[in-house]
Amino acid sequence: MIKITFPDKNVREYPKGTTSFEIAKSISEGLARNVLAAKVNGETWDASRPIDSDSTLQLLTWDDKEGKSTMWHSSAHLMAEALEALYPGVKFGIGPPVDNGFYYDVDLGGNTISSDDFKKIEDKMVELARKGSKYERTSVSKKDAIAFFTEKADEYKLDLLNDLEDGTITFYKQGNFTDLCRGPHIPETGFIKAVKLMNIAGAYWRGDEKNKQLTRIYGITFPKKSQLDEYLTMVEEAKKRDHRRIGKELEIFTFDDDVGPGLPLWLPNGGAIIEQLEKLAKSTEQAAGYSRVRTPHIARESMYLTSGHLPYYEDSMYPPMILEGEKYYLKAMNCPHHHKIYKELNPSYKDLPIRLAEYGTCYRYEQSGELFGLMRVRCLQMNDAHIYCTKEQFAEEFRAVNEMYLKYFKIFNIDKYVMRFSTHEPKKLGKKYVDEPELWLETEDMVRKVLIESNIPYVEVPDEGAFYGPKIDVQVWSAIGREFTLATNQVDFAVPRRFGLTYKNSQNKLETPICIHRAPLGTHERFIGFLIEHYAGNFPIWLAPKQVSILSISEKYNDYAKKLLQLLINSDIRGLVDSRDETIGKKIRDAEMKKIPFMLIIGEKEFNENKVSVRRHGSGDVGSFTIEEFAKMVQEEINNSLNINKQ
Amino acid sequence: MIKITFPDKNVREYPKGTTSFEIAKSISEGLARNVLAAKVNGETWDASRPIDSDSTLQLLTWDDKEGKSTMWHSSAHLMAEALEALYPGVKFGIGPPVDNGFYYDVDLGGNTISSDDFKKIEDKMVELARKGSKYERTSVSKKDAIAFFTEKADEYKLDLLNDLEDGTITFYKQGNFTDLCRGPHIPETGFIKAVKLMNIAGAYWRGDEKNKQLTRIYGITFPKKSQLDEYLTMVEEAKKRDHRRIGKELEIFTFDDDVGPGLPLWLPNGGAIIEQLEKLAKSTEQAAGYSRVRTPHIARESMYLTSGHLPYYEDSMYPPMILEGEKYYLKAMNCPHHHKIYKELNPSYKDLPIRLAEYGTCYRYEQSGELFGLMRVRCLQMNDAHIYCTKEQFAEEFRAVNEMYLKYFKIFNIDKYVMRFSTHEPKKLGKKYVDEPELWLETEDMVRKVLIESNIPYVEVPDEGAFYGPKIDVQVWSAIGREFTLATNQVDFAVPRRFGLTYKNSQNKLETPICIHRAPLGTHERFIGFLIEHYAGNFPIWLAPKQVSILSISEKYNDYAKKLLQLLINSDIRGLVDSRDETIGKKIRDAEMKKIPFMLIIGEKEFNENKVSVRRHGSGDVGSFTIEEFAKMVQEEINNSLNINKQ
Repeated sequence: MIKITFPDKNVREYPKGTTSFEIAKSISEGLARNVLAAKVNGETWDASRPIDSDSTLQLLTWDDKEGKSTMWHSSAHLMAEALEALYPGVKFGIGPPVDNGFYYDVDLGGNTISSDDFKKIEDKMVELARKGSKYERTSVSKKDAIAFFTEKADEYKLDLLNDLEDGTITFYKQGNFTDLCRGPHIPETGFIKAVKLMNIAGAYWRGDEKNKQLTRIYGITFPKKSQLDEYLTMVEEAKKRDHRRIGKELEIFTFDDDVGPGLPLWLPNGGAIIEQLEKLAKSTEQAAGYSRVRTPHIARESMYLTSGHLPYYEDSMYPPMILEGEKYYLKAMNCPHHHKIYKELNPSYKDLPIRLAEYGTCYRYEQSGELFGLMRVRCLQMNDAHIYCTKEQFAEEFRAVNEMYLKYFKIFNIDKYVMRFSTHEPKKLGKKYVDEPELWLETEDMVRKVLIESNIPYVEVPDEGAFYGPKIDVQVWSAIGREFTLATNQVDFAVPRRFGLTYKNSQNKLETPICIHRAPLGTHERFIGFLIEHYAGNFPIWLAPKQVSILSISEKYNDYAKKLLQLLINSDIRGLVDSRDETIGKKIRDAEMKKIPFMLIIGEKEFNENKVSVRRHGSGDVGSFTIEEFAKMVQEEINNSLNINKQ
Repeated sequence: MIKITFPDKNVREYPKGTTSFEIAKSISEGLARNVLAAKVNGETWDASRPIDSDSTLQLLTWDDKEGKSTMWHSSAHLMAEALEALYPGVKFGIGPPVDNGFYYDVDLGGNTISSDDFKKIEDKMVELARKGSKYERTSVSKKDAIAFFTEKADEYKLDLLNDLEDGTITFYKQGNFTDLCRGPHIPETGFIKAVKLMNIAGAYWRGDEKNKQLTRIYGITFPKKSQLDEYLTMVEEAKKRDHRRIGKELEIFTFDDDVGPGLPLWLPNGGAIIEQLEKLAKSTEQAAGYSRVRTPHIARESMYLTSGHLPYYEDSMYPPMILEGEKYYLKAMNCPHHHKIYKELNPSYKDLPIRLAEYGTCYRYEQSGELFGLMRVRCLQMNDAHIYCTKEQFAEEFRAVNEMYLKYFKIFNIDKYVMRFSTHEPKKLGKKYVDEPELWLETEDMVRKVLIESNIPYVEVPDEGAFYGPKIDVQVWSAIGREFTLATNQVDFAVPRRFGLTYKNSQNKLETPICIHRAPLGTHERFIGFLIEHYAGNFPIWLAPKQVSILSISEKYNDYAKKLLQLLINSDIRGLVDSRDETIGKKIRDAEMKKIPFMLIIGEKEFNENKVSVRRHGSGDVGSFTIEEFAKMVQEEINNSLNINKQ
C-alpha cells in the first residue's frame, strides 16, 4: 500500500500502482468525470499514470490552470490528428498550450491554409473527439523514436529528438496520431466538447528567421459548448473594451519614442485617476495603521547583493549607472529600501507591527516583444507596503490585509476573485525553499486558517511557494469575465535576516521579524488597465477623470459656465467647460463620447433661474437643480461608493 | 557725454570718465555713502573706476549680493595687510569672498596661528580699517609684476602670475599692502566697521595634496557693528536648529551607505510631513486649475538631445544606462516629459492655459564633497508645474503664480522674502540670450509690472537671465534670519519651439506657447530642511508628523488609549500611544523631546469620566476634554492655519 496526501492534508492508503483517475473514482464518480490530470509530488501527470510510492496528490479539473492547459495541450494533438487526416504528409513542429488555448506550428508542404479552412478542420476535430480515443503514453528508445520520424519524414521532430537523451523519450498516441511528447494529457478525446480555431500566423522554426517559416494555427477548446459561446462573447467584448484603444480615446495615457517603450506618460485624465486611487489607498492604509515613507528610485549595487536581487534577478533589472566608480541600479522592488528604514527605526516588540507604505515606482526590464499596453510595462507604480511583525502577530496582520482586499473588491465591483495560495514542498526544503520547516508549516497553517475564516475563495497550489515563504496571487475577473492577476502577497521569513533586521522581544533579546509584502491595488499601470476594461471606460463618478462637463448653449453663457466650474472645483468636483462654438447637440455627443458622468446644460432659462439642467451619461435628463443641489448630489453618490470602505 | 541707463530704464547723461561713485553722489549723498561697487554693462566694477562709453549701470550696496561679496573680498585684503604687519614675511595664496565672509590661504613660514590669535588680528584689522585707506587699482606689466613678487619672495603669487597674460594684470593697493588682484573692491577700508575671524583650517596650495599645506583663515565683516552681533546670534541659533541634528532626533530622514550619498530615506515622520505638503500643494493647485500628470523617471538620450540637456548639462546628470543598445538617463528635470504630454494633448487656443503639475522626482549629480544634509542632495522631489499659455495670457498666469507664493508664505509664516528678477542684456542677444529682442522686453515688462502690482519685494538683476528667458529666484529668510533660495521661476520662449509645441490660434494658425516653469514649494528635500530650521522642529499642528501622543498612566489604560487613538485616526488626526512601562513623568518628557504638539494623559480619573487631560507642547496643561471635543479643537486649529489659503 502507498500513502496519498491530499491538499487538505488528509492521508489515504491505496494499492501501489493506483492511478489518479482511480483515486478520484474512489472519492466520487462525478469527480472522476472531471479529472483532466493530476499533480503528483508537485509534477503534473496523466490521470491514468500509475503511482508507485507515497505521494502528495492534487486532482486537476477545468477549474485549475494546469487542468486547462493539459486539456489544451491534448487539443493541439487532436488538431494535429485532424490536419494529418485532411492534409496527408503534413509535418509538425511544436504544439504547446498557451494562455488562451493552444497552437501547432505545421509545415503543409505544397498546401496552404486560410481561415476559410477553419470550419473543415474544426468539424474534423469534433468528429475525432467524439470517438473518445485514449491518450496513451509509451516510453521509446531514442533509436526507435528516430526510426519512427525518419519513416514519417518529419525533419522537425528529428531535429527535436537531437536534443533529447535516450531513456527520457516518450510518445503519446491518440486515434491515428502519434507525437513525440513529454505530456501530460487528458484521459481521452471525449473530454473535448467544443472547438474553435482562432487565428493563423507565420512562425520560423525554432524562432530563427534563418529557418523555414511554418504555419502557426491557434485554437481553443472547452469541455462544454456553452463555455465556448461565453468565451467568444468575451473576446468580442474585450476587443471593444481594449484598454489601449479606450486609453487613447479618453486621453488617459500615451507612449512616446523619446521616453522609451514600456514607459507610459499619464495624461491629465490618467493623472486624475491615479490621484483618486492613491487618495483611496492612503486613507485606507492610514485607517489601518500604516506609516508612509519615501525612498529614492536608485540604490548602490551593495544593496542588491544583500537582497539577493543581484545576480539572480539581474536580467529583469535595468542595467547599472556607473558613478564615481560605483554601480547604481534603478530599483525593481521597494522592499530593500523599506528594510533599511525598518533598521533605522530599531524597534522593540512594543513598536511592532510596523507597516511601511509607499506608492513606490519600480523599474523592470521586460523584453520589447513582451511589452503590451499597460499590462506589460517597464515602469510600475506600486501600491506597496511591508508589514514587519512577530510570529504571534502574523495571523492578525494577514487577516487585516485580506480584509483590505475585500473592501477594495466591493468598491471596484469585483464580484469574482480567488486567492491562489502557493505552498512549499517539504522534500525540497533547503533547495527550492528556505530551510525553515516549522516556520513554513506554521505560517501556511495560519494563512490557510485566515483564508477559511474570512470566507475568501482560494485554491491551494502545492510546491509553488516563493523561496522565502508562502505566496498568495490574487486573481480577479473583469466585468466581462476575463481573468487578471491583480497582486501578489508574499510572506517572507528569510530576507529580514539577510538585512539583519531585528527587534527586542519582551525578554530584551533580539529576534527577526516576519515580513509581509502586500500590494492590494497592484500597480497603477496594470490596475488602471484592468479598470478600463472592467468599466469599459465608464468609470464610477468618484474615479472619473472629469466628473462634469458644463455645456453652454451659446457663447453668452461661457462666463457663467466658468463661474459654475469654479464653484464645483471648490466642492472638490472635477469638471470642464465646453465653450467651443458648436451646437449643444454636438457638445452633448462629445461629452457622451468622453464618457463624462454628468453634463450641465446652461442656456438662457438656466441662467435666469440660476439653475443647471443635468444630463447623465448614458441615461439622459435628470432634471433642473441649483449648482449647490447638484454638487451635494454628486458628493452623496461618491460617499456612497466609497463608504463601503467604512462598514 | 555718455549715456547711463539705470535698472529702471531711466537714462541720464554724464561726462565721459565719470565714476559710479560720482554718479551715485549726483543722485544723493546718502546713496554715495553706501555704494560699495557697481555693475557696469553686467560686470562688477570698482565704484571709483571711470566709465568711458554708453553703459548700463546698477549701483551695488550691502543689500546686493555682489555688494556684500565686494566688501568681503576687500576684507580679505585688509586681513592680509594685518597679517603682514603682525607676521613679517608671511606669503599669500588666494583670498576670495565666500557665501558668508571670506578667507585667505597663507604660508606663515615658521610661525603658527590658532584661534587664540584671532583677537590680535581682528584688532589690527579694525585699526587699519579706521585709517580709511583707498583701494587703488593699477595695471602692471607681467615683467614688473614678476619683479615685485620676486622681490617679496612670494612663490604663490609668482605661480599665479605664470597663468596670466601680459596686458591683463592688475594690482590693488590699500595702505601698506599690495596684491595681485582682478578686483573689484570697495572705495576705502573705512566701510568695514566690524570684523570677526571665524575659523582656521588647512588647505593645500591649488587644492592639490602634493603641494604644500597652507593655513586658511576664515573671517566675516560688516558695515555696522550691530550686524555682526545679529550674525553671531544667528550662527549660534542655526547650530541649535541644524536640520541634520533635528532631522535625526525627530526621525525625519536618514542616509544609508547601501542606498548612496545624497539620497535621503524618508522615515515615517518625514513621510508624514511630505504627505501634508503634497496635500496642501495638490489642493492649492487643483483650485488654481492645474492638471496632475505622472511621468517616468527616465527617458532616452534623444529626449535630452532635443531639450539641450545633452551635452550642456550632462555633468549634472547621472550617467546613462545602456539598454538594448540605447542610452537611458534619469531625469534631471521634469520639463521634457511635460512637453511631451502637452504635445499629445494637441490643444487649440481655447484649451489654453494648460497647467501640468507633478511632484516629480529628479536626479542630479552633485559631487560628493558638495553634498550637505537635505540642502545639497542628488534626489529632488519637486513641486513642479509647467504652464503653457499665449502671450496674452502670460501676465495673468504669472500674477497667479505669485499669488500662490504669497499664500504659501502666509501659511508657513515666512515674513521676509524677496524675488530676484534676472533679466537679459540686449548686447548679448544671440549669444548668452536667445535672440528674441521683443519677447524679452515684453515678458520682462510684464513680469516687472506684475511684481510691482502684487506689492512683492523684488530686486532686478540685469544680465543674469537664463538663456531661454527671464528668471525669478525666490529668496526667503528663516525665523532666525538665514537666507535660503527656495525656488526658481523661469519664463521660457525657446524650448517649446525645440519640442515643436504649438496651439491653433483663433485664425486656425499654429503658434508656439510660452512656458512658465514654477515650483513654489521647491523640493521636499530643501523645503523640509528649511522648515526644520524655521520651526526649530516645532512644526505647526497641521504639519507635525505626530500630532498627539496618548500617554497612559498605567498599563491598565493601554487598551482604552488604543481605542482613543483609533477615534483620532478616524478624525484624520495623527497620533501614537506610549504604552511603555515608564512613569508618566518620563512619558511627558519624551513627548516634549519629540516636539509632539499635544499630549493626552489617560489615568483612572480620565477613564472613569471618559475624558482626556490635554497638555500642549511647551506650554503645559490645557484642561480636560472629551475625545470629540479635543478632536474638534485640533481640527479647528488646523483649519485656521490652512484657511489663510482660502482668503
